[in-house]
Amino acid sequence: MKRTERVGAIIKILSENPNKLYSLGYFCDLFDAAKSSVSEDIQAAKQLLENVDLGLIETIAGAGGGVKLIPYISDREAENILNQICEKMRDKNRILGNGFLYTSDLMFDSNIVKRAGEIFARRFINLSADYVVTIETKGIPVALMTAHMLNLPLVVIRRESKISEGSTVSINYFSGSAERIQKMSISKRAVTPGSKAIIIDDFMRGGGSVKGISEMLAEFDIEVVGTGVVISSMEPEKKKILDYFPLIYLGTVNENEKTIEVFPNNLIFYKKNL
Amino acid sequence: MKRTERVGAIIKILSENPNKLYSLGYFCDLFDAAKSSVSEDIQAAKQLLENVDLGLIETIAGAGGGVKLIPYISDREAENILNQICEKMRDKNRILGNGFLYTSDLMFDSNIVKRAGEIFARRFINLSADYVVTIETKGIPVALMTAHMLNLPLVVIRRESKISEGSTVSINYFSGSAERIQKMSISKRAVTPGSKAIIIDDFMRGGGSVKGISEMLAEFDIEVVGTGVVISSMEPEKKKILDYFPLIYLGTVNENEKTIEVFPNNLIFYKKNL
Repeated sequence: MKRTERVGAIIKILSENPNKLYSLGYFCDLFDAAKSSVSEDIQAAKQLLENVDLGLIETIAGAGGGVKLIPYISDREAENILNQICEKMRDKNRILGNGFLYTSDLMFDSNIVKRAGEIFARRFINLSADYVVTIETKGIPVALMTAHMLNLPLVVIRRESKISEGSTVSINYFSGSAERIQKMSISKRAVTPGSKAIIIDDFMRGGGSVKGISEMLAEFDIEVVGTGVVISSMEPEKKKILDYFPLIYLGTVNENEKTIEVFPNNLIFYKKNL
Repeated sequence: MKRTERVGAIIKILSENPNKLYSLGYFCDLFDAAKSSVSEDIQAAKQLLENVDLGLIETIAGAGGGVKLIPYISDREAENILNQICEKMRDKNRILGNGFLYTSDLMFDSNIVKRAGEIFARRFINLSADYVVTIETKGIPVALMTAHMLNLPLVVIRRESKISEGSTVSINYFSGSAERIQKMSISKRAVTPGSKAIIIDDFMRGGGSVKGISEMLAEFDIEVVGTGVVISSMEPEKKKILDYFPLIYLGTVNENEKTIEVFPNNLIFYKKNL
């Protein structure tokens, strides 16, 4: 097997399993090659991805060490995908009336949510979280992709407690978007007391859902270390939570003139903020 | 830029965007390289993935042609992941009583559903489908991953019609699992009459949900060309639909002896059946 082949295979395996640590021995066995040789392959793979700004490979020395792909999206690609989402969001056919916009096509588009998940993963990689948590339904795809990039389990909070979730804990909370009391329910089996969670959701208006999720997780002594939403509404300016990271801001929706004001969160492009 | 670097970059880009066609020109621009040179790179990438059984690259000649990664999982990896799912399914702590098993941890595990999605994609790649369709909630992750591998949109059928879905069509159907009449609802915006769909779901007992989805899609003159489920219950033997492809069979769950009988669908390992 030639170097080119081994380097290509290493890149494919690491790319498909982000943030998962592979020992040097794994690749030695796969390629039937010596450690010194595999070490050089990994260096070549690392250099290669950096050259074309396509990813970051980290090597960890010593026993229990190995190599992994750090979830990464370049500033240019992040900017590109946010502009794409904004462009699509401005389509006047999304206006459903009463302030509602149709966004299911975007939130169930695997390419869009994969890129969004990469941005969240890049943002939250250093928080040592144990889970990604979301609430059904439209936040599930982006939360799943974020969880995949971070190599973490996904926990999905349900609206109704289901028999198939086993024993659950439920709370009621006020949702400003729905303008009524809503219920959410989490399976006791899904979480471990004392752990850390990242909350990912598709849309935030007043922050009631995210606050509800935080309070429910607090019942299990679970700390929320980061919150990411794809779209955050500008109104109301005062949210029920303080710390959150939106990809896109939604401004005024003018139903008469059929205009939708959206713009990307430009702060994500400054590495110092990441 | 050296050959090794270009080959690695091609593999990363194609792997992250399965079933998406890239023109030769795209890579020529990216690498600032001649077509002849990029052609050789692509041949090298193709050979490499085949050698290590990690994927299939297809090149399409002529104008409008290009190169893409065919969604692929090797027989060995497919067997491996199905055995892993079976092993996890046999854990007696999953027994919830009344015939229910806890499976949310598996259905929300991004690595498991990604592999399952690869198997479904490999199975259904040649059906010229326009969408992957599922019904909320636990089928969404595996359906999303299948859609990603096939580069198709995902359509999620909701239990309740939501304002944010715009105009919807709903039906009532009898669910054997829930032992009651249930409702499902689809957004008219999500589908185009005359198209083709693949249905993906997490679990099938009697087939009522899948039959309901088919009937609702038929209202839009949408043909169901394939159905995949992660787990199919052996009982009842007679399902409401005839043609479906399960990854795992669930046999007897003995709540007294705390045993769960599961086994993989071995037919997936014969290429002639794919």
